[in-house]
Amino acid sequence: MMIYIRHARIEWGDCDPAGIVFFPRYFAMFDSCTTGLFSQALGMSKYQFRQHYAFDGYPMVDTRARFLKPTKFGDDVVIETKVTEFRRSSFDVQHRLTLDNELCVECLDTRVWAERNPDNPEKIRSKPIPQDVIAKFNVP
Amino acid sequence: MMIYIRHARIEWGDCDPAGIVFFPRYFAMFDSCTTGLFSQALGMSKYQFRQHYAFDGYPMVDTRARFLKPTKFGDDVVIETKVTEFRRSSFDVQHRLTLDNELCVECLDTRVWAERNPDNPEKIRSKPIPQDVIAKFNVP
Amino acid sequence: MMIYIRHARIEWGDCDPAGIVFFPRYFAMFDSCTTGLFSQALGMSKYQFRQHYAFDGYPMVDTRARFLKPTKFGDDVVIETKVTEFRRSSFDVQHRLTLDNELCVECLDTRVWAERNPDNPEKIRSKPIPQDVIAKFNVP
Amino acid sequence: MMIYIRHARIEWGDCDPAGIVFFPRYFAMFDSCTTGLFSQALGMSKYQFRQHYAFDGYPMVDTRARFLKPTKFGDDVVIETKVTEFRRSSFDVQHRLTLDNELCVECLDTRVWAERNPDNPEKIRSKPIPQDVIAKFNVP
Repeated sequence: MMIYIRHARIEWGDCDPAGIVFFPRYFAMFDSCTTGLFSQALGMSKYQFRQHYAFDGYPMVDTRARFLKPTKFGDDVVIETKVTEFRRSSFDVQHRLTLDNELCVECLDTRVWAERNPDNPEKIRSKPIPQDVIAKFNVP
Repeated sequence: MMIYIRHARIEWGDCDPAGIVFFPRYFAMFDSCTTGLFSQALGMSKYQFRQHYAFDGYPMVDTRARFLKPTKFGDDVVIETKVTEFRRSSFDVQHRLTLDNELCVECLDTRVWAERNPDNPEKIRSKPIPQDVIAKFNVP
Repeated sequence: MMIYIRHARIEWGDCDPAGIVFFPRYFAMFDSCTTGLFSQALGMSKYQFRQHYAFDGYPMVDTRARFLKPTKFGDDVVIETKVTEFRRSSFDVQHRLTLDNELCVECLDTRVWAERNPDNPEKIRSKPIPQDVIAKFNVP
Repeated sequence: MMIYIRHARIEWGDCDPAGIVFFPRYFAMFDSCTTGLFSQALGMSKYQFRQHYAFDGYPMVDTRARFLKPTKFGDDVVIETKVTEFRRSSFDVQHRLTLDNELCVECLDTRVWAERNPDNPEKIRSKPIPQDVIAKFNVP
């Protein structure tokens, strides 16, 4: 499976009065890395691939994170993101954030491939993930 | 155990281009509700109880959330937050966010009671939760 | 002109490693108060009044803030928000955030009443503010 | 004066239900670019230069932004940040965010060089900007 690697410096504005990352900010970083992974696999921005594959996004269904070691502003971290499983209309994403090769945060997401319900545009519903999309992640 | 109840309106700025809450924002809401719960139990703001109990905070160790139903800006939601277990130096917090009595998000956190390491102020370490604190949550 | 008043406690997650509010968070608070003001005047949530008045929102055109005194987590602040002028398709909003009656932040926004361009739904353009909306702010 | 240039892709999580950047997020980007500029000039992370120059940070005193053209997730923007003036203990920073060479946001900040007041560590006060710092921005 394709891996997406992000090198990032922890920002002042991501940290709390204890001087370490305010943990909800990790989820925003990981969301951005999921988009980075799909953009890398599909060769398009999220704006483009939502239009190209005629879907509305991949809302989060379940996420679990373990915070092993805090990071602070100025730390140069690495985030590795990959899909661990594609199912019919849902998929799992794993993120590992390391500092100096030491694991600081590990997160596992489950998301669904979603579209607006044509009968009620305020609602979203799952739809099958295109085989074409899945194929692009299976890099040998 | 004491329960903290927050009534909140979902904000425009908490929502993403799909028009629903950008999920990391839920964690910020829940963090705020954990503080609300401790403030209610201890009768002090977080600024005050960090000083009063001479500790540095309760960093997140593990969190898991399930997103059952999206919410959108303008929705008036209710968040119920409670500690489900106190251990020696860690504790679990449960959050349930409902809209019209329907469960939308459920989250379970594990946090540690922490202080700065006097030998290395850049590091934090766990310390026992004061019995006085725990007692204040056991409302009959 | 109608005034909207918000009582709020500064959150841990809104503060930075210096222990004070990370200033971009003030703008999110003020955005929420602008929505609170319109909701109060129009008797509807933003979700509802966007549909009712068939417009897309009131994007920011210009904002200026002065930060006179920092605030920190646990501070109970008051934000007063009012429209200072309505023009044909734009308006000005003033926010004043105080702590113990001392002015901490003052902000002046200019926003436009906007709709999607029917010829190019990716673009937005200004449209006249309904007189009905303006009238609801002129409380005697 | 030294210029700092950031190439960034607008994130899904930075955008609101209108599909464009929620404007407070621009201020977080600009804050990060100010740090990027100082890190580039001083050859240190913010964590390091706060220690090296024995100060607490450069809190915002005044900021003004004009939003000329919205940007949306997937847009690849460029932010140019520079100090336009150093004074004794304050300085001005200008940010220009462009998309395809078209100016979208312009922002001018005034910040102060600050330290904790030794008589009252809860308060911060301005202190003179070291000449050594200013010299590093005057690249010929």
